[in-house]
Amino acid sequence: MQSRETLPSAHRSDLRLVEVTAWRFERGSSTARAESIAIEEPLEIRLGGRRFTLTMRTPGHDDELAAGFLLAEGFIEDRDELGEVRRLRDSSGRPQPNALDVVLNVSAEANRRRLRRNFAISSSCGVCGKSSIEALHRRLRAVDSLLTVQASTILSLPGAMRSAQEVFASTGGLHAAALFDSAGTLKIIREDVGRHNAVDKVVGHSLLRASLPLSNSMLLVSGRVSFEIVQKAAAAGIPILTAISAPSSLAIELAASLGVTVIGFLRESSMNIYSYHRRVLP
Amino acid sequence: MQSRETLPSAHRSDLRLVEVTAWRFERGSSTARAESIAIEEPLEIRLGGRRFTLTMRTPGHDDELAAGFLLAEGFIEDRDELGEVRRLRDSSGRPQPNALDVVLNVSAEANRRRLRRNFAISSSCGVCGKSSIEALHRRLRAVDSLLTVQASTILSLPGAMRSAQEVFASTGGLHAAALFDSAGTLKIIREDVGRHNAVDKVVGHSLLRASLPLSNSMLLVSGRVSFEIVQKAAAAGIPILTAISAPSSLAIELAASLGVTVIGFLRESSMNIYSYHRRVLP
Repeated sequence: MQSRETLPSAHRSDLRLVEVTAWRFERGSSTARAESIAIEEPLEIRLGGRRFTLTMRTPGHDDELAAGFLLAEGFIEDRDELGEVRRLRDSSGRPQPNALDVVLNVSAEANRRRLRRNFAISSSCGVCGKSSIEALHRRLRAVDSLLTVQASTILSLPGAMRSAQEVFASTGGLHAAALFDSAGTLKIIREDVGRHNAVDKVVGHSLLRASLPLSNSMLLVSGRVSFEIVQKAAAAGIPILTAISAPSSLAIELAASLGVTVIGFLRESSMNIYSYHRRVLP
Repeated sequence: MQSRETLPSAHRSDLRLVEVTAWRFERGSSTARAESIAIEEPLEIRLGGRRFTLTMRTPGHDDELAAGFLLAEGFIEDRDELGEVRRLRDSSGRPQPNALDVVLNVSAEANRRRLRRNFAISSSCGVCGKSSIEALHRRLRAVDSLLTVQASTILSLPGAMRSAQEVFASTGGLHAAALFDSAGTLKIIREDVGRHNAVDKVVGHSLLRASLPLSNSMLLVSGRVSFEIVQKAAAAGIPILTAISAPSSLAIELAASLGVTVIGFLRESSMNIYSYHRRVLP
């Protein structure tokens, strides 16, 4: 993938998009076409050289991200306490694009107190609990499935989810994840304020019933597809992951390496297929 | 707030909504009305009694959430390795609604290895890095601001953000956060695959320029408002937090306690005000 800088303008943030080739299904025919995708990459933030946290982000303004994060988490209270933000360098002195070191300007005692208060015990949610980029590259087995599905079946999934989902319509505040069998029949749906939680509940339901791997299933999520959502689908052995909105660059990369078909912008008569498109029969 | 169970049906997940009173602005007039809001509450997950992680979720199917999370994170591989999921009990033996204990059925050695591999060092993102509910209730100062703004100014914010935001239109994959002054002039916009990151970047930008607290500013976010987004706005001293989509129950509670005006479903001619509505002049 090539990173493509967008044009600068007065209020522009420093965004990065990448063009990928997607299979576009529309009104019964499919064509390969270039699609702009938001870049998702891990950023490792160190505090005084010590590993501290990892976040998945779109590159650009990383110093601002680190500063805002440390303020919100109570590690600094103002500009004076933020000593310096610098790129980590590799062994040959080149700055690393995805790693920062922040030097705080607070007493060692205050720093210890804040660390203790805010991060009592090691813990965490999927990606963000990891403190290094290596920890991300956990070995996941590639999905083992010979499933193929008619395009028309996939196009029917959003309608099926919507009709099972009155609550979403009434609040707009809940994400949904739904599991379908290969015929497009809805088997289980979960809604949650957290997108990852909705997927965890669907997968957890299947695990509790000892019905993993879900090699003949499709998952539909109401929002976007991040790296972490692909990871969760792959861990459950789900071969086809579909979404109402867009996937990120890293989601597509991971899906390609794990044998997961990723479909985005799924509508009643169109969709984009970003990986393993041969599972979808025209 | 009262929890209201939704009606059961074949595919229904066990969702919980709550009704809150919001000030509804529409075509120049405002009325108080009941609005359904998605409940967001912390869930503490322990592993064999030891604090392990905390996630913000919509209550219901907590056992599934824990099971799916542990699978995705590589702590268990199948049903057999998940020994038991039970509610923590308080000192008088009552089950706690927001805390689970999971007993794994894996060898101590395998457990240590998986913990080491997945959670190398204590760390994290806002909420999810915390391992206990107490850690959430960090003392944040209430926002100190006498700002009042005309409703018409607030209604103009989404249009201003959209026109500064061509990238969003071209990918659908990026969240946006924008900071405005009291006249509704856009001062800074950041886009990111992560909603929290976009807010961190906007706040971090201001911190790096030593322009905190942002007592005369308004923040607009493209998505929903969670507990954590309110926390970030309050830490930066922002008195008015607006969003295109819905706030969660806990976001409104926190905003009410910290003096933050939360506005949701912001459109060109309508909005809902959930807290501190007196900052908005009709």
